[in-house]
Amino acid sequence: MVIPIDRNGSRPVFRQIVDYLRRNIESGRLPPGTKLQPIRLLARALGVNRETVADAYRELETLGMTESGVGRGTFVLARTDVPRPGVTEDKPAPRRPFVPILSHAADTVTGLRLIDYTTDPHAVRLDRCVLDGSLYPIDELRRALNHVLRRAGRTLLDYGDPRGHEGLRQILVERLTGYGIETNADDIVLTAGSTQALALVAHTLCDPGDAVAVEEPAYPGAAAAFMALGLRPVAVPLGPDGMDLHALDTLLGRRGARLLYTMPTFHNPTGQTTSLEHRRSLLAIVARHGVAVLEDDFEKDMRVRGRPVPPLRALDGTGQVVYAGTFSKALFPGLRVGWIVGSRRVVEAATALKRATNLTSSTVLQAALAEFCRAGAYDRHLRKMVRELAARLGRAERALGVHLPKGSTFTRPDGGLTNWVTLPEPIDTLALLPEAKRAGVVYAPGTVFHPDGRRSSSLRLSVGQAGPDALERGIATLGEVARVALGRRRGRREIAAAQSIHV
Amino acid sequence: MVIPIDRNGSRPVFRQIVDYLRRNIESGRLPPGTKLQPIRLLARALGVNRETVADAYRELETLGMTESGVGRGTFVLARTDVPRPGVTEDKPAPRRPFVPILSHAADTVTGLRLIDYTTDPHAVRLDRCVLDGSLYPIDELRRALNHVLRRAGRTLLDYGDPRGHEGLRQILVERLTGYGIETNADDIVLTAGSTQALALVAHTLCDPGDAVAVEEPAYPGAAAAFMALGLRPVAVPLGPDGMDLHALDTLLGRRGARLLYTMPTFHNPTGQTTSLEHRRSLLAIVARHGVAVLEDDFEKDMRVRGRPVPPLRALDGTGQVVYAGTFSKALFPGLRVGWIVGSRRVVEAATALKRATNLTSSTVLQAALAEFCRAGAYDRHLRKMVRELAARLGRAERALGVHLPKGSTFTRPDGGLTNWVTLPEPIDTLALLPEAKRAGVVYAPGTVFHPDGRRSSSLRLSVGQAGPDALERGIATLGEVARVALGRRRGRREIAAAQSIHV
Repeated sequence: MVIPIDRNGSRPVFRQIVDYLRRNIESGRLPPGTKLQPIRLLARALGVNRETVADAYRELETLGMTESGVGRGTFVLARTDVPRPGVTEDKPAPRRPFVPILSHAADTVTGLRLIDYTTDPHAVRLDRCVLDGSLYPIDELRRALNHVLRRAGRTLLDYGDPRGHEGLRQILVERLTGYGIETNADDIVLTAGSTQALALVAHTLCDPGDAVAVEEPAYPGAAAAFMALGLRPVAVPLGPDGMDLHALDTLLGRRGARLLYTMPTFHNPTGQTTSLEHRRSLLAIVARHGVAVLEDDFEKDMRVRGRPVPPLRALDGTGQVVYAGTFSKALFPGLRVGWIVGSRRVVEAATALKRATNLTSSTVLQAALAEFCRAGAYDRHLRKMVRELAARLGRAERALGVHLPKGSTFTRPDGGLTNWVTLPEPIDTLALLPEAKRAGVVYAPGTVFHPDGRRSSSLRLSVGQAGPDALERGIATLGEVARVALGRRRGRREIAAAQSIHV
Repeated sequence: MVIPIDRNGSRPVFRQIVDYLRRNIESGRLPPGTKLQPIRLLARALGVNRETVADAYRELETLGMTESGVGRGTFVLARTDVPRPGVTEDKPAPRRPFVPILSHAADTVTGLRLIDYTTDPHAVRLDRCVLDGSLYPIDELRRALNHVLRRAGRTLLDYGDPRGHEGLRQILVERLTGYGIETNADDIVLTAGSTQALALVAHTLCDPGDAVAVEEPAYPGAAAAFMALGLRPVAVPLGPDGMDLHALDTLLGRRGARLLYTMPTFHNPTGQTTSLEHRRSLLAIVARHGVAVLEDDFEKDMRVRGRPVPPLRALDGTGQVVYAGTFSKALFPGLRVGWIVGSRRVVEAATALKRATNLTSSTVLQAALAEFCRAGAYDRHLRKMVRELAARLGRAERALGVHLPKGSTFTRPDGGLTNWVTLPEPIDTLALLPEAKRAGVVYAPGTVFHPDGRRSSSLRLSVGQAGPDALERGIATLGEVARVALGRRRGRREIAAAQSIHV
């Protein structure tokens, strides 16, 4: 044990030891049951007389904070709320606190708005874009973990390849072939979820101050990752069929972006999937402008209907598209396993940056995930999960058709977790949220998905955390809350109209 | 399965399907045993006629690449090296590859020199600063993992707190109290090893272009992390008692750095621990200049002798010091668990950056580590590990005294894994490395620890990967190799001297 002792100060060393231990026992940092270091050892560690330590320990015992027995040592006692009499604590006067000057990046991301989604546990949670725990194949993962730790624990617990576990990269190669993407284990970097994937690609391809073109509305986590790197997200509006390509062409023509970030499949928040024609046109535009593309295919394994469309990366013959994916949505996020696929040059640079800032990922969990896939557990999970997802999306769609007020619209995604709902103007879904929470339903208000934070009558519903019946109930509640809000608005307008007649 | 089909191209769709599958079977992306999608489903997925897919499958079978049976489906066969007759592959002509413009950060870290340490498996590895696998308590970790996944799997596999698992942060609070550091779980952020800790602190406190004062020699991973963020490491020379404080004062006085990075305990590479007086003087200097300090205490649990000295963070009453630590050295690196302790403002900003670039860490492994500590397994491991470490450091010291050529010096650290050895001039330890490897010993040449890459007659020995006997053997070999090199030098000088007489 080390206690910072000031030998030149006015307070006796004995008192400094008592105060340090007392303060930390009272704050719970030294919890009940903690064994204090033997007197002899602490005295040696601090370079003080044994008697000094013994006196300090006796004082703590007198204060009722510890108890000791010959041959057993000294233990911290459970705190009592009885005030300790007769002793005023003699804490050193704090010096003036140091006020750090934060980086511009830290200032920016600290200022990002976070919505308060906390609610009572009975509310239907339609805000969280993640599968609920009842769908997690925990035991199969546990078996895979035991297997790989037994077989290769020493290797897996050492430092690993900064690109991540090779076996898992090999499995991704095989699985991606089924999506039209031809790659190699050497052209993949595993990341801590797709958030790190996006940050890593942007870090590899953009310098501070550069602009990144992003869809609007879009996943706000991407913009946050870009801003943390000193980049400027520039919005390209999303139409009913995907990104407005004319707007994109104009933006890139003005040299207005160094990178294009896009989610062409099961877009978050809208759930949209762009057509093959849209993808080819987009690729033609970025090829003309020589701008790299970051394709975020975060829910690729979550299709419940419709014909699959090849990812941009599968259509790109030039290596212009860097492809990012994750196990966080189709499986669960707690392993923090995502990946990027890119051209050799991009992957080597991304690997160097990953090494410089993370050294490696944890290959333990990556190896377990590889074993989990090899054992067929991932495919079994996907079959079960997609069945459940289809039931949920179907039920949500029917419920939205029945319960939303007239004039509302909503998307009908072919997969993924989210529906994008637009309520009639002039509802502001952020202002409506507290009311919805009180009524028992939570959603993600549209403003979250606009980089400029503009108010919106749209909202994102996720089917991840609620089964079909809860979805029906939650959506009915949402419809009711929206109707009440609209009625209030109309009432106010009628009153205002009536008043204007009388004035 | 998705195959990118070009309907406007000159190649028939049938041929495009055959070529895609053939290419990926031949490359191993679709390995033997892979079941191809049923004809009906693939036809539907691609929006083509069933007969087109059936024709493609028949052609693959004719080529000997697949086999199919009624009611079983079509499977990829093991590759034979017999050339496939009569078919020339019709791969689409590749378009001109896209050449990405890398970021300045990516360019910088891609250019960092990596030393080739590969060697035959019988060589004594004194280069790797990590414990060898025989010391890893794998079974106890496995038990802890099973325990936490059984008890709290759903929560742990969901997204978690961006600061990391609360239970582990609480354990760190208790353990750090034993080092004189008084903190709270809310003032700790868990990171992916200490590399991410260093990067995160620098990202929080420095803007691109800023200078960071670092010791020289120093751990090169820190400089790499800083450079990845666009920062400039500026060297402060290390004397026999730690950083040259006069040089530090001068540098900070010129406003030459935004942050000071230092390893005051078991410094990497030198193994030095600075005195309490040195620490107080350092704190007085940075307080005067208002510069934040990043203290890297990566081997704190690895003391084998001597009186512990309080970390800078324990002596700092103002919050000027941010403290970073890791489980990678005393336990093992594969969990990727490090941490930072800072003032509330720094920790909140670092958390926002961590969220923006990583969302969360993996709380699965963090929870397992917390359980591992609670169960006493970490303390049991430390006792065993420190005993072994003491034996190794002692043996290394004795061997260095016996085997090094005259004029060599070496440090005598009180803990940690490394010794800093300086051979007589004019030996260049980088140039000597291939010879040492051939003779059966590997070390980290001194140049690695100099930011400017200057040649050096020093080297770092780590006792992490070799038991006492192997250490003795490796150090004897090193001494022999050094003596031969010195002899050759002297021989050349004598020849040169002799020649100069005769000329």
